[in-house]
Amino acid sequence: MYVILVYDMGQKRVGKMLKLCRRYMNWIQNSVFEGELTDVQLRELLHEARRIMDEDEDSLILFKNREKRWLEKQIVGVERQSTDNFL
Amino acid sequence: MYVILVYDMGQKRVGKMLKLCRRYMNWIQNSVFEGELTDVQLRELLHEARRIMDEDEDSLILFKNREKRWLEKQIVGVERQSTDNFL
Repeated sequence: MYVILVYDMGQKRVGKMLKLCRRYMNWIQNSVFEGELTDVQLRELLHEARRIMDEDEDSLILFKNREKRWLEKQIVGVERQSTDNFL
Repeated sequence: MYVILVYDMGQKRVGKMLKLCRRYMNWIQNSVFEGELTDVQLRELLHEARRIMDEDEDSLILFKNREKRWLEKQIVGVERQSTDNFL
């Protein structure tokens, strides 16, 4: 399935989450990722994310779409994903 | 249509963009919004966003879905939208 993931993490945990998400998905902006994942991959990602997260403080939102073509993406301004230079 | 909006703005412009997006959409996390918009509303929002943005520095990504029910949302950890206390 096609997944959009956004996280909001405490400063101490954000590096680990970024690294985890990059293993499974494509970084598109700030704390936003997109990617095509299988059910198993998504389960693994969430399992690992929960180990990193403080679930009383941090937040992770997933938007899951069975078909990518149902979702139209529009970018205004800079397209961050190609540069990655915020790191 | 159902829209997810994420922005990444320079510090000076972020307040204006937040205010603009709140007029049209629901804030769900950090710089992430969701909402049901008509074509006209989306056009207005983008027109105003472009006036705020520095298109060489800032980035705005929209994911547009004709039907909200095609998209499944999953939240892990804290659900920010109900508190809004980061402001």
